[in-house]
Amino acid sequence: MPKRVDHGLRRRQITDAVCRITVRGGLQAATFREVAAEAGVSVRLVQYYFGTKDELLLSTQRHVAERATGRIVAAVAATDGRPRAALRALLGSFIPVDQESRDNMLVFVALHSAGLVDPTLARPEARQVPDALYETVRSRLQEAAPLPPGVDADLEAAVLVGLVPSLAQGVLGGTYDADQAFTILDYALTRALGRPPGHTGGAL
Amino acid sequence: MPKRVDHGLRRRQITDAVCRITVRGGLQAATFREVAAEAGVSVRLVQYYFGTKDELLLSTQRHVAERATGRIVAAVAATDGRPRAALRALLGSFIPVDQESRDNMLVFVALHSAGLVDPTLARPEARQVPDALYETVRSRLQEAAPLPPGVDADLEAAVLVGLVPSLAQGVLGGTYDADQAFTILDYALTRALGRPPGHTGGAL
Repeated sequence: MPKRVDHGLRRRQITDAVCRITVRGGLQAATFREVAAEAGVSVRLVQYYFGTKDELLLSTQRHVAERATGRIVAAVAATDGRPRAALRALLGSFIPVDQESRDNMLVFVALHSAGLVDPTLARPEARQVPDALYETVRSRLQEAAPLPPGVDADLEAAVLVGLVPSLAQGVLGGTYDADQAFTILDYALTRALGRPPGHTGGAL
Repeated sequence: MPKRVDHGLRRRQITDAVCRITVRGGLQAATFREVAAEAGVSVRLVQYYFGTKDELLLSTQRHVAERATGRIVAAVAATDGRPRAALRALLGSFIPVDQESRDNMLVFVALHSAGLVDPTLARPEARQVPDALYETVRSRLQEAAPLPPGVDADLEAAVLVGLVPSLAQGVLGGTYDADQAFTILDYALTRALGRPPGHTGGAL
């Protein structure tokens, strides 16, 4: 019986290799030759599955996004489902707290900044994750109505979604540690939603 | 009389070439050979001035930061000097509104993301601009006291400084146009400082 090849698994082995190489030396280190060596396959196979470097990077971006989405959905599901807890889990899942989440965020940042320069990488599908994040944050804010005076769910969602990549990169770059990043996030959530119920005043 | 060489100018010609190449094809396109060709000098001269690629990128980062600082100081000086106007000029100067500011932000993003992967590029001096920005925003917020209830100058400064790179990248990537980015910034400023004096209610 001929061996069945799981093409999805093969493709993922290769995009995982792109991620590991990018973490070590940036996207520019991810040549077909290096990626093939890292994945333990032939250059010809990488070419067969992905054709061009752009296609390889787009697929990597898609795989990173899928993995991130999985983690985020699990983090939100583990909360009590109230808007504040859900928003904290959702937005906080971008803040690197261990090596795996650091690596994921590094790859994400590298691909995002490559996409700004290279229009091929900035295809509409690269916007699906940020757009979905914005919509989710906005609808969680709307669920939490009435919001404090002056809070507009649409604009507040843009502020929160805009803040999170900077916190994540601040942790990666050493400006903040994860605790400080969460302190800033909690402050922003309190400004958006009001003080958590049961809070008796004092410091935020 | 021997011709006097302006080394500062020469160095800047070369780092300007790095910027132009980065805008067209990303940092990875900025090889010594390409940079020399773009600057109209010999590869040997690029090596003489900068030695390594890391040194070349660090110097480019420094030149981009100096130019940005000049633009920001001029933008703030052109305001009435009140906290809100000064903060809007300061933070708004990161939002790309024309080709030059787009290009500057692209180079900045490319260098920043390279610095996250390559620790050599993440030298302490690369933090001078963000640190100075944070301190300036924090002291402008303190000047604007009393701040609205719940606003903490330290944490609010972190939120505002964190928001701005995302707005800038949102404009670069096409998520927002510049007007939308300014609407979000104005909303965040109103939340931080209260409504501008003379405002008679209604939409922000």
